[in-house]
Amino acid sequence: MSEEALLTDLYELTMLAAYVEHDMQDEAVFEFFVRALPPQRNFLIAAGLEQVCDYLEALRFSAEDRAWLASTGRFSPAFLRWLGDFRFTGEVSAVPEGTLVFADEPLIRVTAPLPQAQFVESRLMNIVNFQTLIASKAVRSRLAAPDALLVDFGLRRAHGAEAALMSARASFIAGFDGTSNLLAGKRFGLPVYGTMAHAFIEACASETEAFERYAATHTRQVTFLIDTYDTEQGARHVVALMPRLRARGVEVVSVRIDSGHLAKHARAVRQILDEGGCGDIRIFVSGNLDEASLLHLKEIGAPVDGFGVGTRMNVSADAPYLDCAYKLQHYAGRPRRKRSTGKATWPGAKQIFRRSDAQGEIVGDTLTLEGETAPGQALVVQVMKCGRRIALSDSLLSLRERVRAGLASLPPAYLDLGAQCSYPVEISSGIRHAAALADAHEAHA
Amino acid sequence: MSEEALLTDLYELTMLAAYVEHDMQDEAVFEFFVRALPPQRNFLIAAGLEQVCDYLEALRFSAEDRAWLASTGRFSPAFLRWLGDFRFTGEVSAVPEGTLVFADEPLIRVTAPLPQAQFVESRLMNIVNFQTLIASKAVRSRLAAPDALLVDFGLRRAHGAEAALMSARASFIAGFDGTSNLLAGKRFGLPVYGTMAHAFIEACASETEAFERYAATHTRQVTFLIDTYDTEQGARHVVALMPRLRARGVEVVSVRIDSGHLAKHARAVRQILDEGGCGDIRIFVSGNLDEASLLHLKEIGAPVDGFGVGTRMNVSADAPYLDCAYKLQHYAGRPRRKRSTGKATWPGAKQIFRRSDAQGEIVGDTLTLEGETAPGQALVVQVMKCGRRIALSDSLLSLRERVRAGLASLPPAYLDLGAQCSYPVEISSGIRHAAALADAHEAHA
Repeated sequence: MSEEALLTDLYELTMLAAYVEHDMQDEAVFEFFVRALPPQRNFLIAAGLEQVCDYLEALRFSAEDRAWLASTGRFSPAFLRWLGDFRFTGEVSAVPEGTLVFADEPLIRVTAPLPQAQFVESRLMNIVNFQTLIASKAVRSRLAAPDALLVDFGLRRAHGAEAALMSARASFIAGFDGTSNLLAGKRFGLPVYGTMAHAFIEACASETEAFERYAATHTRQVTFLIDTYDTEQGARHVVALMPRLRARGVEVVSVRIDSGHLAKHARAVRQILDEGGCGDIRIFVSGNLDEASLLHLKEIGAPVDGFGVGTRMNVSADAPYLDCAYKLQHYAGRPRRKRSTGKATWPGAKQIFRRSDAQGEIVGDTLTLEGETAPGQALVVQVMKCGRRIALSDSLLSLRERVRAGLASLPPAYLDLGAQCSYPVEISSGIRHAAALADAHEAHA
Repeated sequence: MSEEALLTDLYELTMLAAYVEHDMQDEAVFEFFVRALPPQRNFLIAAGLEQVCDYLEALRFSAEDRAWLASTGRFSPAFLRWLGDFRFTGEVSAVPEGTLVFADEPLIRVTAPLPQAQFVESRLMNIVNFQTLIASKAVRSRLAAPDALLVDFGLRRAHGAEAALMSARASFIAGFDGTSNLLAGKRFGLPVYGTMAHAFIEACASETEAFERYAATHTRQVTFLIDTYDTEQGARHVVALMPRLRARGVEVVSVRIDSGHLAKHARAVRQILDEGGCGDIRIFVSGNLDEASLLHLKEIGAPVDGFGVGTRMNVSADAPYLDCAYKLQHYAGRPRRKRSTGKATWPGAKQIFRRSDAQGEIVGDTLTLEGETAPGQALVVQVMKCGRRIALSDSLLSLRERVRAGLASLPPAYLDLGAQCSYPVEISSGIRHAAALADAHEAHA
């Protein structure tokens, strides 16, 4: 997006103008973290770093942007000239995408001259809040249906174009098999799924004619939507057609049911298909699904092989935002924090150490200042230097594998969708000391 | 977005390929409607039509799009050539943006050759679901605080870039005064607001130094953030500074409180400001607000003049999606509908007639077939013909005024944020007859 530099809150620029005027351009450290997990989440999956790096590398104000800013009458010509040369030249350290994270842990740390580190707040949060939110929601569907085909169906009720694209990406990282969203398929190389809507059936003279016409045009990976008029009747229409379609080499992989009592329909349809010699045709269901309905269908033994999970995953319906923040941790050589009631933060550039037991199960994290040590594996790694990535991006498949490994390392209680677990995150003595320093300095200022 | 044609579900294109191959290109009518309102909504505000028209007018597949589609191996060269000439050439009728609407009422009707009317489903729903959702949520803040300054603060936790832009637009239509989002300000001509974050305060040696530095750079419409360390102390710092700032001509319009017990802080701050000769400085609050907290603050008489309402409005936290659909109503000369359990639809191209009493209060709507008549005002008007808009777009201010007039016409119970009202929408005999026809035809097919 060419205008992306303006996709920010006005206050970022009014602050920048003051920073520049008062030459407050020393090195600053900001961190993005989640203050508290939603009640229905035992862990989060970090996601969105890739798009943050894209944003930081491309960040600049075009002449048009600056002309528009000038027209607002809020900024001096000197500041607008300065903005013409504004680039992100700092460092970024982060937990790799796909890493499991918990409350208070820094997902992304930005170290740069104060104006740069400050400015990127709004868009960085906009990117990381959403993708982390969706990855952390989508993984619950994967946990509910470990072996089923899971397809993102949420484009139509996602919150705009970018939400649709980013939720397709984030849900794939979290374990979905693909998406119905073509542009997400193109942009991220995701598998795409989909065949027909009810309108297709209704536009034909009959359901059977609709199936025949579709199969005359498409012969691979065909899924017939069978609930437009009467679901069981739809299944019988498929059975009746299959000899002819097989003879023509049409590969019918599944039928889709999108309404009604899904378990009851699925059982009846399974029986009709099996008795009709169509045991190889799988049953795919959709319609207002989430992890709770997936779990329920599994628990009652509904013969369902795949799910289109849309709206409720794409908007994270039970928790549509994270209590997240991007806060100044350190500036001009000393730690900083706010002490606002209920929103006090731990200062300093931080590292996360994660401890595991002998079986590889994780047992707790320690938050330390960068430079301190603690037992366990350090999770925060440098990803950008001098405003540029220092390594190639991870493939989405490798991020997916990181999620899988992370889930395998969690104590089983954390994987229970109904349980509430609170993961132990210790605060190092170094951080506590820095907090005292920051408070003492403010008290004497 | 140049790739916007691909921002669609795969099934739209697989259906199109079959429609084209079987020459199913007769005129089709699709309508977008909401099946049921969320429990906490007594009405919805239609929004997003402008962006739908933009999308329809610009719709085309670039050579790059078609090359990528070819690479998927799913489409024939003949279909991809046909797609090169694909344009939207149809008609659109709709209720104007800002109109109050209810369950089952068509917000947008598309009449076009079947492939066109079908294809636009995914993106049209993506646009209209979201903006209608947000306008219908944001108006609740305006109802809770009729006279306060209301500013959209939600960029950082909106679901991506487009959600941030569109929620700024939709909330302005619904009665917000402006947004913190600069790009939304530029693109839609919205008033933008904002001055400083906690980081600005923390980066300075003291809160007083921070205020002084800010006011040295910005002299108009200054708002000081006073809760970084101690809110009442922050208010005293402002009072102490004001003589000097006034002498320099700095216009301090408000202080902002972003944390803690807002009512308690606001009362204490109001007293400090008033006693310090700063009775003209208003109090602006922010931080996890929604209509319930606004109403509560008003009910307990908290001296608050303005609100930054962010996340919970921008994601419509209590109802983050609408139960909406875009359904085939009529094709090739006869009505169509699906009868899927729980999702049966009323067929036919429809009109809404809205009846008012002598005082101008609305009393009920009648859904009719286009061409039928009923008492009241017809709400659905034609907006596009032959793929082009037939009139200039409404200004956002006129849409805002339409919302205001709509609210004034509602029975007072509907404006009670805690009440559940069900607005009477009658179905005409013409529609019932069309439904019987559609069912009879399918039964005999």
